Amino acid sequence: MNDDSLTLHTDLYQINMAETYWNDGFHNRKAVFDVYFRNLPFGNGYGVFAGLQRVIEYLEGFRFTEDDLAYLKEQGYADDYLAFLKDVRFTGNVRSVEEGELVFANEPILQVEAPIVEAQLIETAILNMINYQTLIATKASRIKQVIGNDVAMEFGTRRAHELDAAIWGTRAAFIGGFNATSNVRAGKRFGIPIAGTHAHSMVQAYGDEYTAFKKYAERHKECVFLVDTYDTLKSGVPNAIKVAKELGNTIQFKGIRLDSGDLAYLSKEARKMLDEEGFTETKIIASNDLDEQTIINLKAQGAKIDSWGIGTKLITAYDQPALGAVYKLVAIENEQGDMVDRIKISANPEKVSTPGRKKVYRIVNKANGKSEGDYITLHDEQPQQEERLKMFHPVHTFISKFVTNFEARELLNPVFENGQCVYDLPSLTDVQAFAKKNLELLWDEYKRPIMPEEYPVDLSEACWENKMKRIAEVKENVKQMRK
Amino acid sequence: MNDDSLTLHTDLYQINMAETYWNDGFHNRKAVFDVYFRNLPFGNGYGVFAGLQRVIEYLEGFRFTEDDLAYLKEQGYADDYLAFLKDVRFTGNVRSVEEGELVFANEPILQVEAPIVEAQLIETAILNMINYQTLIATKASRIKQVIGNDVAMEFGTRRAHELDAAIWGTRAAFIGGFNATSNVRAGKRFGIPIAGTHAHSMVQAYGDEYTAFKKYAERHKECVFLVDTYDTLKSGVPNAIKVAKELGNTIQFKGIRLDSGDLAYLSKEARKMLDEEGFTETKIIASNDLDEQTIINLKAQGAKIDSWGIGTKLITAYDQPALGAVYKLVAIENEQGDMVDRIKISANPEKVSTPGRKKVYRIVNKANGKSEGDYITLHDEQPQQEERLKMFHPVHTFISKFVTNFEARELLNPVFENGQCVYDLPSLTDVQAFAKKNLELLWDEYKRPIMPEEYPVDLSEACWENKMKRIAEVKENVKQMRK
Repeated sequence: MNDDSLTLHTDLYQINMAETYWNDGFHNRKAVFDVYFRNLPFGNGYGVFAGLQRVIEYLEGFRFTEDDLAYLKEQGYADDYLAFLKDVRFTGNVRSVEEGELVFANEPILQVEAPIVEAQLIETAILNMINYQTLIATKASRIKQVIGNDVAMEFGTRRAHELDAAIWGTRAAFIGGFNATSNVRAGKRFGIPIAGTHAHSMVQAYGDEYTAFKKYAERHKECVFLVDTYDTLKSGVPNAIKVAKELGNTIQFKGIRLDSGDLAYLSKEARKMLDEEGFTETKIIASNDLDEQTIINLKAQGAKIDSWGIGTKLITAYDQPALGAVYKLVAIENEQGDMVDRIKISANPEKVSTPGRKKVYRIVNKANGKSEGDYITLHDEQPQQEERLKMFHPVHTFISKFVTNFEARELLNPVFENGQCVYDLPSLTDVQAFAKKNLELLWDEYKRPIMPEEYPVDLSEACWENKMKRIAEVKENVKQMRK
Repeated sequence: MNDDSLTLHTDLYQINMAETYWNDGFHNRKAVFDVYFRNLPFGNGYGVFAGLQRVIEYLEGFRFTEDDLAYLKEQGYADDYLAFLKDVRFTGNVRSVEEGELVFANEPILQVEAPIVEAQLIETAILNMINYQTLIATKASRIKQVIGNDVAMEFGTRRAHELDAAIWGTRAAFIGGFNATSNVRAGKRFGIPIAGTHAHSMVQAYGDEYTAFKKYAERHKECVFLVDTYDTLKSGVPNAIKVAKELGNTIQFKGIRLDSGDLAYLSKEARKMLDEEGFTETKIIASNDLDEQTIINLKAQGAKIDSWGIGTKLITAYDQPALGAVYKLVAIENEQGDMVDRIKISANPEKVSTPGRKKVYRIVNKANGKSEGDYITLHDEQPQQEERLKMFHPVHTFISKFVTNFEARELLNPVFENGQCVYDLPSLTDVQAFAKKNLELLWDEYKRPIMPEEYPVDLSEACWENKMKRIAEVKENVKQMRK
């Protein structure tokens, strides 16, 4: 095959369903799908949305190539269907939260409203992009909460799940608050600051640290020396200091990096050794399978670490490597051209979808600027015009509160209208700043890494009642089926 | 930037080390690096190697583009170094185990022998490819052991870590023994059989199962119906049967798919319902967060499942989402042009590398065709000429055995020689068959999913003694440093 178009990056059932709809003349019925996840990952109190740039690029390029169609023909699809597919483009609407927006379980984070044939064909790739990138942005933000104002660097390329994950993952990590990446391609493609000095292999190649550090410093005046190739305190740090003293002002002795052993003990001892020699400005950088838990512990032990290199545990989201965002049909056009609601029932209550075209609002308290919770309405409600909003838990409905003096900020923004992208992508730096600002609006109890409070994501009364009505209808239909 | 070459898909420190070597006139020193992992993932008793095709494509395309160099210039690299980088190609040798080969901890699975500057620049991308693909091939093989002769289908695209992981991961799953994938792009690109029928959304779109199944069957004569949109036993299975009976011989009622609920109970009940109506050939397909543990349990409970769709847990290697393969310098050319050995010491004994240029042999018992273990030698040993081989554990050296009547099969094959690819990639089907054959050579005690025996990976006496000698040298050097 001569190309590698992304249009076939979909599950086969989408192609088969599309064929069914087309065969039946049903394919242009307008359908509305919601993307949402049912649980926040890592026990975190919030998620950070990422993936929209990739989704936009994908939708703009969506078309079956000659190669794609030739492959499908080989698989047995008939010419009439292939002729139809040849002209399929994305002509629908997409509304989405922005990258860097805080997102929570069970609220639509992206909506597609399009002829059902198109909406199906794009499902798989959209989920693939958003699930991974949102997962990593969330993990990065969680780690950055613990790192605080220290420098956070993404070092995980070699353990990432193939090449795309390395670069889109590090972009997501930047959105989540990371400062730099070691991946040069990601630096080139996305403008992320790049970081890195040398590896153990350079010390091994020259045979000893003294020679290796000197050779490095000949060309690189801003020096960070990796000090754990043989013995950190007996050999690595003394050699780094020796070279730095010999070269004096001809170099800037920026830092040392610790990559193994007891980072708390070694960093404290190394700090003393550096300070005693007057290198009080020389930073200590740590790496080695770090994540938010080890960092909390290292900080609690008084580790003298200024800068953190995070690899495997971030880029693979090691403790929970999948976000389970789904893409559910919530409404479809009927024969008369009216939109009718749809629901997916499950014996597992949390898997029941919320039917209907909806809007999502963040309810912000005007008195203190903090978020009171998110509020999901049917598409034609106007909560921003209410004086007093009743918010109640969609499962445990007795948990409720009234909110006044609020602003209702709509979270889903128009991204595509009639197939045209109408959204100006902000710069990546602006996305990072947006995520940071959003976190400031969130009460601290939702941000702690362990046992955060549950942020309210509530349904309006109309939305809740509509859901209950649809559940009752389905149950009645199943009962009829048994007669 | 106008291109997205993979040459910058590397850690920044590789660029800086390369600059150091070049600046010092050290860059053409021949270096030998071993790729190996220290622990098998998932508690499995063996690994399945994958990633070589991707590595070959990458190395053949390795060159810094004008865009790459322009970006590096922006980052402050000087013109003389960039002029050097412009002409860098991979000119070295690669030896590797073949895809589908069984691999174990602490043995070289790929070796690079090249001018050190080249060997460093390619490290990160090679690890990125091999770590992920070997991880997934291993997970897939582990799952397939449990699935046995039932059909195993990879369904994980939407949860994969971005797009590359979805397609290279499903290729790795095929190597590990999977029969099909839902990802159409992977089918097109790699020739993997594709599978899939319809989703819940199609049932929701038509509003009821009866209509949806009928519409589907109008165009697709080989029917698999998804039966859990509303209620599996009260609605889904009865509707599937009703449609199949109505349509009779005009369709083939191939199967039903269960995607939620108690798969053991539902599959047994559904089997009874199908059999009672004469659909004894209709298969039951199951999906829903399956992995080897749930499948063992479902089989133990007598679930009537013929075909398994595995998504998230496979494509993300959910229970251990990273393989920690490393790339370690083991020898380098000295000023006189002789190769000298190099070691990396660590306070953690398992992190001490094995120095020297080495070969790896699989010791196969000629009497029964089974593998006795792997045997790592220095590059100039000839174990195949020995009558009697002493194999001993490299850490617990008292654990030893003598092997006679054996064949010593070399595992590392030439892939690149002087920068030219000399390896003919087998077809993917052949790779899968090769993996299957390799598994037959392995005793069952290494293959069980829980608490397998440890397969011996031993060092020759000369290799072991060389390692001990290098450790002693480094310790002496550190002692000298302190004086």
